[in-house]
Amino acid sequence: MSNIRKEYDSMGEIDVPADKYWGAQTERSIHNFKIGVDRFKMHPIIIHSFGILKKSAALANRDLGEIPTDIANAIAKAADDVIAGKLNDNFPLVVFQTGSGTQSNMNGNEVIANRAVEILGGQIGDKKVVHPNDHVNCGQSSNDTFPTAMHIAVVLELFNRLFPDVSQLRDTLQKKSEQYREVVKTGRTHLQDATPITLGQEISSWVAQIDFALDTVKNTLQGVYSLAIGGTAVGTGLNAHPQFGDRCAANIAELTGHPFISSKNKFFSLAAHDALVNVSAALRTLAGALLKIANDVRWLASGPRCGIGEILIPENEPGSSIMPGKVNPTQCEALTMVCAQVFGNDATVAFAGSQGNFELNVYKPVMVHNVLESIDLLSDACLSFNEHCAVGIEPNLPVIKKHLENNLMLVTALNKHVGYDKAALIAKTAHKENKSLKQVALELKLVSAEDFDKWVDPLAMTNLNRS
Amino acid sequence: MSNIRKEYDSMGEIDVPADKYWGAQTERSIHNFKIGVDRFKMHPIIIHSFGILKKSAALANRDLGEIPTDIANAIAKAADDVIAGKLNDNFPLVVFQTGSGTQSNMNGNEVIANRAVEILGGQIGDKKVVHPNDHVNCGQSSNDTFPTAMHIAVVLELFNRLFPDVSQLRDTLQKKSEQYREVVKTGRTHLQDATPITLGQEISSWVAQIDFALDTVKNTLQGVYSLAIGGTAVGTGLNAHPQFGDRCAANIAELTGHPFISSKNKFFSLAAHDALVNVSAALRTLAGALLKIANDVRWLASGPRCGIGEILIPENEPGSSIMPGKVNPTQCEALTMVCAQVFGNDATVAFAGSQGNFELNVYKPVMVHNVLESIDLLSDACLSFNEHCAVGIEPNLPVIKKHLENNLMLVTALNKHVGYDKAALIAKTAHKENKSLKQVALELKLVSAEDFDKWVDPLAMTNLNRS
Amino acid sequence: MSNIRKEYDSMGEIDVPADKYWGAQTERSIHNFKIGVDRFKMHPIIIHSFGILKKSAALANRDLGEIPTDIANAIAKAADDVIAGKLNDNFPLVVFQTGSGTQSNMNGNEVIANRAVEILGGQIGDKKVVHPNDHVNCGQSSNDTFPTAMHIAVVLELFNRLFPDVSQLRDTLQKKSEQYREVVKTGRTHLQDATPITLGQEISSWVAQIDFALDTVKNTLQGVYSLAIGGTAVGTGLNAHPQFGDRCAANIAELTGHPFISSKNKFFSLAAHDALVNVSAALRTLAGALLKIANDVRWLASGPRCGIGEILIPENEPGSSIMPGKVNPTQCEALTMVCAQVFGNDATVAFAGSQGNFELNVYKPVMVHNVLESIDLLSDACLSFNEHCAVGIEPNLPVIKKHLENNLMLVTALNKHVGYDKAALIAKTAHKENKSLKQVALELKLVSAEDFDKWVDPLAMTNLNRS
Amino acid sequence: MSNIRKEYDSMGEIDVPADKYWGAQTERSIHNFKIGVDRFKMHPIIIHSFGILKKSAALANRDLGEIPTDIANAIAKAADDVIAGKLNDNFPLVVFQTGSGTQSNMNGNEVIANRAVEILGGQIGDKKVVHPNDHVNCGQSSNDTFPTAMHIAVVLELFNRLFPDVSQLRDTLQKKSEQYREVVKTGRTHLQDATPITLGQEISSWVAQIDFALDTVKNTLQGVYSLAIGGTAVGTGLNAHPQFGDRCAANIAELTGHPFISSKNKFFSLAAHDALVNVSAALRTLAGALLKIANDVRWLASGPRCGIGEILIPENEPGSSIMPGKVNPTQCEALTMVCAQVFGNDATVAFAGSQGNFELNVYKPVMVHNVLESIDLLSDACLSFNEHCAVGIEPNLPVIKKHLENNLMLVTALNKHVGYDKAALIAKTAHKENKSLKQVALELKLVSAEDFDKWVDPLAMTNLNRS
Repeated sequence: MSNIRKEYDSMGEIDVPADKYWGAQTERSIHNFKIGVDRFKMHPIIIHSFGILKKSAALANRDLGEIPTDIANAIAKAADDVIAGKLNDNFPLVVFQTGSGTQSNMNGNEVIANRAVEILGGQIGDKKVVHPNDHVNCGQSSNDTFPTAMHIAVVLELFNRLFPDVSQLRDTLQKKSEQYREVVKTGRTHLQDATPITLGQEISSWVAQIDFALDTVKNTLQGVYSLAIGGTAVGTGLNAHPQFGDRCAANIAELTGHPFISSKNKFFSLAAHDALVNVSAALRTLAGALLKIANDVRWLASGPRCGIGEILIPENEPGSSIMPGKVNPTQCEALTMVCAQVFGNDATVAFAGSQGNFELNVYKPVMVHNVLESIDLLSDACLSFNEHCAVGIEPNLPVIKKHLENNLMLVTALNKHVGYDKAALIAKTAHKENKSLKQVALELKLVSAEDFDKWVDPLAMTNLNRS
Repeated sequence: MSNIRKEYDSMGEIDVPADKYWGAQTERSIHNFKIGVDRFKMHPIIIHSFGILKKSAALANRDLGEIPTDIANAIAKAADDVIAGKLNDNFPLVVFQTGSGTQSNMNGNEVIANRAVEILGGQIGDKKVVHPNDHVNCGQSSNDTFPTAMHIAVVLELFNRLFPDVSQLRDTLQKKSEQYREVVKTGRTHLQDATPITLGQEISSWVAQIDFALDTVKNTLQGVYSLAIGGTAVGTGLNAHPQFGDRCAANIAELTGHPFISSKNKFFSLAAHDALVNVSAALRTLAGALLKIANDVRWLASGPRCGIGEILIPENEPGSSIMPGKVNPTQCEALTMVCAQVFGNDATVAFAGSQGNFELNVYKPVMVHNVLESIDLLSDACLSFNEHCAVGIEPNLPVIKKHLENNLMLVTALNKHVGYDKAALIAKTAHKENKSLKQVALELKLVSAEDFDKWVDPLAMTNLNRS
Repeated sequence: MSNIRKEYDSMGEIDVPADKYWGAQTERSIHNFKIGVDRFKMHPIIIHSFGILKKSAALANRDLGEIPTDIANAIAKAADDVIAGKLNDNFPLVVFQTGSGTQSNMNGNEVIANRAVEILGGQIGDKKVVHPNDHVNCGQSSNDTFPTAMHIAVVLELFNRLFPDVSQLRDTLQKKSEQYREVVKTGRTHLQDATPITLGQEISSWVAQIDFALDTVKNTLQGVYSLAIGGTAVGTGLNAHPQFGDRCAANIAELTGHPFISSKNKFFSLAAHDALVNVSAALRTLAGALLKIANDVRWLASGPRCGIGEILIPENEPGSSIMPGKVNPTQCEALTMVCAQVFGNDATVAFAGSQGNFELNVYKPVMVHNVLESIDLLSDACLSFNEHCAVGIEPNLPVIKKHLENNLMLVTALNKHVGYDKAALIAKTAHKENKSLKQVALELKLVSAEDFDKWVDPLAMTNLNRS
Repeated sequence: MSNIRKEYDSMGEIDVPADKYWGAQTERSIHNFKIGVDRFKMHPIIIHSFGILKKSAALANRDLGEIPTDIANAIAKAADDVIAGKLNDNFPLVVFQTGSGTQSNMNGNEVIANRAVEILGGQIGDKKVVHPNDHVNCGQSSNDTFPTAMHIAVVLELFNRLFPDVSQLRDTLQKKSEQYREVVKTGRTHLQDATPITLGQEISSWVAQIDFALDTVKNTLQGVYSLAIGGTAVGTGLNAHPQFGDRCAANIAELTGHPFISSKNKFFSLAAHDALVNVSAALRTLAGALLKIANDVRWLASGPRCGIGEILIPENEPGSSIMPGKVNPTQCEALTMVCAQVFGNDATVAFAGSQGNFELNVYKPVMVHNVLESIDLLSDACLSFNEHCAVGIEPNLPVIKKHLENNLMLVTALNKHVGYDKAALIAKTAHKENKSLKQVALELKLVSAEDFDKWVDPLAMTNLNRS
C-alpha cells in the first residue's frame, strides 16, 4: 500500500502522505516555507481555536441554510477532533508562511474536510463530498478566520495560563506581605538608605504592581472579544450570509464561555490587529513589573555576607561550577530573562502591527505567535518563580535589625521638631564622624535623649496602621 | 546693585542670579547637570502641574493645621503665579537630573517660597518667613510630588492636546467616509487586487482604528488619576498628616476638573510608574494606527501616472529641488516620522519603567518627558496632517473606475454559483490570456452573459447596506 | 533492571534516568526550570560548542600538567561524541535557567564526565574516576565557559548558515541586476513617479544593501573571536593555569578553523556581552535591508492589474481561500515577518546586554538564544525567498513601458536647457491638462520637437554607463 | 519700510520676512509643518554641514564648468557665512517636514542664493542673479544632498563631541583603575559574594567596555564616510556632471579633514541609511556599557550604612527634600536616563531605516535627528558624570576590608587542594553555623592552619600580576 496519495488544488496535483488528512495547500506550504521548522510550528492553541471556529461556522451555515445539514454536522464532528487535539499532528505548518495565515486556514479546511469526508463514508480527498473551500470555509476567508482564531487563542491562553499562573505568585506575595507586616526594615531610595518601611509594606508594592498589570491585561480583553468573522476577504462580508458573522461569533462564545462578538467594523478587524498590540503592551507592563520584583528579591537576598542580605531565598541547586557552596538567585535570573524576551516579543508585535496596508495586515502569524509565546513564558516563569523562590522568602532578621539601627535616615522623624536644616546637620555630622544619630543630636543639644527615643521610633515611622 | 544674591542649603552658600526666585538647590542643579540644555528643559506643563500641586498641598496643610494660614495662603498665591505661567523663566532645569526629580521639586519649592516671602513682605531668601522644605514641601517628598506632577501633567496634556487634536483628524476622516460611501473601488489584500470595497468603507477602517486607539489611551486614565501624594519619602507617609494625601488629591481634582484621587498603595506609586508605561504603550498603538493610515493615503495617492493613483491629496509645496512639478505626500512623511519617534519614545519609557529598585524608580523625568513629547508630537502632527492633507483627500474617479473594471477578483462573486475551483479557472485563464473575466466565463461556458452581469456587480459585492 | 540511578552533588543525592549520562545538577535543573520547555531547548550549536570547548580545555590542561593524561584523553574522546551530535538527547535543559548558563555548563561537565568514566571502564556516576568539576571543568567556571561557548556557537552559525545562505540570495539578485541592466523604467521617490532608472540599477541597490549588511556582520567578528576562557569565576583566572586561557583558545581555533583568541580583559568578557549585542545589531541592519527589499519586490509586483505591476514573481500556491485565482507575494510576507522577529530579538539582546552587574552579566542564555534564532531565521528565510521568489523575478515589460512613457518626471532632463522654473511649468501643465510633456513643451514653445526627443531620452537619463 | 518681501517658487508668490534670506519654499514649510517647533528645530550641525556641502558643490561645479565662476565664488562665500554660523537664524525649519529633507535643502539653497545675490550686488530674491535650484542646487537633489549633510554632520559630531567627551571619562576610569590596582575586594557574581578581585581590575572592565564601544562606533565610520552626493534624484546622477560626485566629496574631505568619498552605489545611498542605523546601534552599545558602569558605581556606593558601600562618590547636592543629610548618586541617575533615551532613539532610527521604498527612504530627518541627539546626550552626560562623579570615586577601605574577611567564596582557593566537594562542605558549614572558613576547615580537619593561610590569600587569588 502506498505511503502517498494525490491531492489537488487550483494549481494542480501534488503528493501528500497517505496517513495524513491534509491536502494540497498544506503540502505546498511545507515545501515552500522551510523557515524555523524546529521552533516555530503554529501554536497548538491556534489549531484548537481553528477547531472551535470551523465548528461554529459550520453550525451557523447549517442554521442559515448555507450548507446541507449532513455536511455541516460532519464538519462539526471533524472539528471536534481538532478541538480535542486528536489531529494535532495534521498541522505541520510554521509561523513564517503567508502573512494572512492562509495556509493554516487551508490546513484546517483540508484536514476537517477530509476527516468529514471520512465520517460521511467518502473517499479521503473527494471534494465533492466535502469541499475545503466551498463547505468548510463557507462564508469565510483566511483574512477573517485567521484573526478570529488569533483572538480566540489569545483569550483562551490568557484565561487558562496567564491569569491563574500569575495569580499564584501574586497570592503567595500577598500572604508574605501579611506575614511580614510588622517586620520593620530600612527603606531604600536611589539605592541609598531611607526612612523605615516594613517588609510587608515593601512586598505590598509588588502585589499592587502585579494587580495593576493584570488589570492592564484585562482591560485589553474587550478588544480581543471582537472578532473579524463575517468580514471575509476585505471586510465587506462578500459571500457570507448577512447573519453569519453574528451567528458564528455567538457559537464561539457558547463553545468557549467567553463573550465574543462579531466586530462592528470588519475592515478594521482585518487591516489592523491593534487589539493584539494592546495585549502585547499589557504583557510588557507585566514583564516590567516582574523584572522589578525579581530584581528587588535578588538584591535583598544579595550576599550572603557582603551584600544587603535582608531576606533569605531557597537554595535550589549548587550555584557555581567553580565556587563551592555558592547559592545564586537562579529563579530571579530565569524570570528576568523571560521579561527581556517579552520586551523583545512586544517590539516585534508593535512593529508588525504598524505595517498593514489597505484591507489587510499580513503579519498576522508572527503577531499572534509572539503574544502567545509571551503569555506562555510569563506563565511558566511565574509558576517556577513562585514554587522555587517566592514561597520560600523569609526575612533575615539579624541583618534587618543591624541595618535599621545604623540607618541615618531615621533623622527624618526630627524634621517636624527641629526643622529640615538642623536635622540635616545631625545626619551629616553622624555620617562624617561615624557616630549614631542620637549621640550627635545630644552633643549638638538639639534634642533631649527622652525626646529622641520618643520621636525616632522606626515602627511608628512606618505609619503601619495608616496604610 | 548686584546681579547676584546668596542662597544656602544644607551644603552651604551659593550665588544665584538676583532677578530669579530660585534658591541654592536649583542653582546647584544648573551647574551639575549640563546635559541636553538646548532641547531638554523640563516641559512647561510639568511646571504648571507643580504649581497646582503646591497650591493644593498648601491649602490641605492649612486646613489640617500643619502650617500657618498666612504662610499657606502666600504659598497658594505664589503657586498661582506658577500656574499662570508667569514664573516659567524661573524653572531652568533639565530632564537629565536626579532620577526622582528632586531638583525640580526643589526648584518649585524654592521659587514658590521666595515668591511667598515677597508676598508676605519679607526679604527673598529668608527661610524663616517661608521655608522651601518645611513649608512649601510640608508633608511631601520629591518621591511623591514629582510623580504626582507627572500624572497631572499627562492628564492635562492628553485632554488639552491629544484628544481634541486627534479627534479633528478623526472627524475629518469620518466625514470623508460618509462622503465617499458609495465610491466603489478595488480592495487590496497582500497588495494584490482583491474584491471591491467602497472608499467610504476603506476610510471607515481608519476612523475605527483611531477610535480604538483613543479608547486605548482613555483606558489608561484610571491609572493616571491615582496620585502618589501622601506617600512622602518611601510610601509610608512619614511626616505627612494622615489626611494630607486625600485632601491634597481632592484639591488637585477641584483645581483641574479631573477625578484625581490619592493612590491606594503609595509604595507602588513611588516605586513603579506603570501607569505611564501604559499611557506610552497606548500612544504607540495610536502611532501604529496613524502610520498605517498615512501609508494608505500615500500609496493610494501614489503616481500621478505610474502608481495606484486612486486618490488626490493637496499639493502644498514644490516636491523636489531637482524634479520640476513633482508633488510629494509630505504630510504623510512628517506624520510617519512622528510615529517612528513615538515608537522610540515608548521604548525609552518601557525600559525606564522596568528599572525601579526597592522603594523608588529613579527614571521619573525621562519617563514623563517622553510621554509628553509623544503627546505633543502626535497632536501637532494630527493637526498638520488634518489641515494640510486629510481635508483635501478626494477620489480620482477615472483611475478608480479603470482599476475596478480590470479587477480579476470580481470573480469571487461567482464562487457561490460555480464553486471555488471553476471560479479559479476563470480568473487564472483571464490573467494568463489577458482577457476579461466575462469573456473567459462565457468562453468556458460556465456562466451566461446575463447571469454574469447580475452576479458580478461590484457595488452589490461591497454589501454596503449591510455594514 | 532499574530505570533510574543515583547521582549526587554538593546538595545531596537525586534520581536520574539510568539511560542518560547527565548527573545531579542537570536533573535538578529539569525540575527547577519548567519554562518554555517546548520551544526553548538550548540550541544544538551551543551543545556542539561545549563539546569543542571541553575537548580544548582537557587537552590544554593535559599539556599543562593540570590533569592526568588518561583522564584528559577520555574527556576529549567523550567530547568528540558531543561534537558529533551523538549525545544531543543528553542535553535536556532550556534557555530560561540560571543566567550564567551554569546548569548547561554542568550538563556538559556531567555528561562528558560520565561518558569518560565509561570510556575508562568505570562505573557511571563514579566521580573518583572522572569528576565533572575537578576534571572536566578544571580551570574553568560557568562564567567563562558559557560565554566562550556562546562565541563559538555564534561564529559557527554565522559561517555555516548566515553567510552562505544570505549570499545565495545576494548572488541571485546580482545576476538579476546584470540581466536587467538596460531595462529602463520609472524611478520612484516619495512613492511618486521620478526620473528613470533601470531595473538593474534598482536591483543593484538591493545587492549593495545586502553587501553592506554582511560587511556590518563581519565587522562584529573580531569581538566574537575574543573568548572569556581563562577568566574562571570573576575574570581573575583563579584556579586556572596561567597559560590555560591562551592554550585553550588556540585549541578551539584549531578545532574550528576560526581565529579565536583569549580575551585581553577577562573581567569585561564575563561582565558584558557587547560583542553579542553588536552581532545582534548587525543582524537587525540585515533585517532592515531585507525588509526594504521584500517590500520593494511586493510593491513592484503589486496588481496584477490595479497596482504597480512592473515585475512578475513566481506563483507558488493559491493565494486565497475565498478569492479564486489570487496569487500573493507570500515569500515576501514570510521574509518580512522574520525581519520583524529579528527586530524584536535584537531588542531583547540589547536590553539583556545592558543589565550586567559587577563581575557578571546573568542574561547569557537569553542573549545567545536570540542571536542564534535570528541567524537561523534569516538564513532560512533568505534561502526560501531566494528559491521560491527571487530566482523567478522577471520584468513585466509592457507595464514598465507604459509607465515610463507616461512619466512626467522625464521633464527633469530639460532643467539644464530651460531652467527649473520653466521645466516645472511644462510638467504642471501636462499634469493638469492630462497631456504629454512633449505636447505641452511644444505648445508653450519652450523646446523644439527635435530637441525634446534628443534631450528627453530615458535610457540616457539613467547614466547607465556611468554607474 | 516693509517688514515683508515677496518670494516665489513654482507654486507662486508668498510673503517672507524682509530681514531673512530665506525664500518661498522655506516660508511654505514654516506654515505647513507646525510640529514640535519648540524642541525639534533642525540641528545646527546639519545647517553647518549644508554650508560645507553647498560650498564644496559650488566649487566643484565651477571647476567642472557647470556654473559661472563669479556665481560659484559668491555661493562659496555665502556658504562660508553658513559654515561660520552667522546665518543660523535663517534656518527655522523643523525635523518633521518632508522625509527627504527637501525643505531644509531648499532652505539652504534659498538662503545661500539670496546671500550670494547680495554679495554680487543684486536684489535679494532676484533668481536671475543666483538661482537656488539652477545654481546653488546645480547637479544636486535633496535626495542626495540631505543624506550627504547627514553624514557630514554625524562625523563632525562624533569627532567634536562624542570621542573626546567619552574619552575623558574613559581616561579618568583608566587612572582610577591604575590607582586602585591593589585594592583587593569581594568579587560579585549573580549579586552574590564571589572570589576576590581588585578594585582596579573591576574598573578595568569598565574601561574595556568603553573602549570596545568606542571601537564599535569607529567601525561604523567607513559607512558614514561614503556620501550620496552625485546621485541626484534617484541615484543615476541625472543633471550632475559625471565627475561632480567625486569632486564634491573631495572638497568636503578637504574642508572637514575627514576622508569622505563619493559612494560606490548611489542608489543604495539614497534608498537606505543603514550607515546611520549602524552608528545608532553602536551608540546603543555605548549606552548599554555606560548603563552597566553607572549601575555598578551606584550599587558599590549604596548605603551609606545599609548597602554595599565599598566606594565613595562625591556629594554634589542635598539628596532629598524630606530626608535631611541624604546624598544620592544623581550623576548615575542622569547618565542612566540618558542611556534609556539613547535606547529609544535607536529604536526610532532602526524602525525608520527599515521603511524605505524604491529609490528613497523618506525618514531622513528623523533618523539624523535621533543619531545627533544620542551623540549630544551621551557626550554631555559623560562629561557631567566624569566631572561630578567619576573623578571623585574613592574606595571605602574599612568596608572593603570587612566584606573581604567575611567572604565565604575565598574557599574556592581550596578546590585544587581538597577538591570541589570538600571545599563546598567547608563553605556550606561556615554559612550554616555562621563561622569563619578557617575555623570550619580546621574543625573538619581538611586543612592545616598553616596551609589555610598560605592557600587562602585574597591578593594572590586575584592573579593581579597575570592580567
